[in-house]
Amino acid sequence: MSICFTPIGYVRTDVPDEAMPHFHAVSEVEGTLEILPEYEQGLSDIQPGRQIQVVFHFNRSKPFTRDQLRQIPRKRNELRGVFGICSPTRPNAIGLSIVTVLAINGGKVRVKGVDMFDGTPILDIKPVVVLSGERRSE
Amino acid sequence: MSICFTPIGYVRTDVPDEAMPHFHAVSEVEGTLEILPEYEQGLSDIQPGRQIQVVFHFNRSKPFTRDQLRQIPRKRNELRGVFGICSPTRPNAIGLSIVTVLAINGGKVRVKGVDMFDGTPILDIKPVVVLSGERRSE
Repeated sequence: MSICFTPIGYVRTDVPDEAMPHFHAVSEVEGTLEILPEYEQGLSDIQPGRQIQVVFHFNRSKPFTRDQLRQIPRKRNELRGVFGICSPTRPNAIGLSIVTVLAINGGKVRVKGVDMFDGTPILDIKPVVVLSGERRSE
Repeated sequence: MSICFTPIGYVRTDVPDEAMPHFHAVSEVEGTLEILPEYEQGLSDIQPGRQIQVVFHFNRSKPFTRDQLRQIPRKRNELRGVFGICSPTRPNAIGLSIVTVLAINGGKVRVKGVDMFDGTPILDIKPVVVLSGERRSE
């Protein structure tokens, strides 16, 4: 069974791949989510200062193979199951980052906290929902 | 450009669709993530008590149409851009829930906090990463 999606836009950043932080929570990198004109209206009501979740495609990852079900994460030296780590090499190459909105201009969403390479296809944008003092994401 | 994925497993729950909470953060519903045997090894090192993120396919949603770029969310009475709300009717029907692991037995992950219907295709499982006292998700 195949479940297919098409990008709603692409990540743009001047930072070269080799200088890109590996995790959004420690990234100060700015970039732009360029949302395609046909989806621009879906951005209405997103406010600067808010955090959003970006669902994206790890389009540079090599095809996943069975021997990658367990991997040695960066900065560790033991094998871990792929579903317990953030590796870009996954059975389905789906990534998830939380970034902070700096400004919106039409379909261009300027954000901070980027850990996605220039040209990354964006699949969805979701709010970060805060409930009873605790942040939950959906 | 089409980006295709195949399910790594399916959500199982006894709770009927009409009784399913609409948001994981307020759900006490238990269920099982049944991960396919070929991906079972990827679950190693996921511990009971931990929260995990489930990336899934809103397989029951009707096809998205342009007039749904802005929608009236439940419990509100004004139109909002689809990327700022959690509606299951989205340009790409990708859902995201945070659930708490109760137990793991082979490929069966018993979880609490389910807001996904029985039979929902699971695309990925990711850790909830805590950094410097603040919870960030990737």
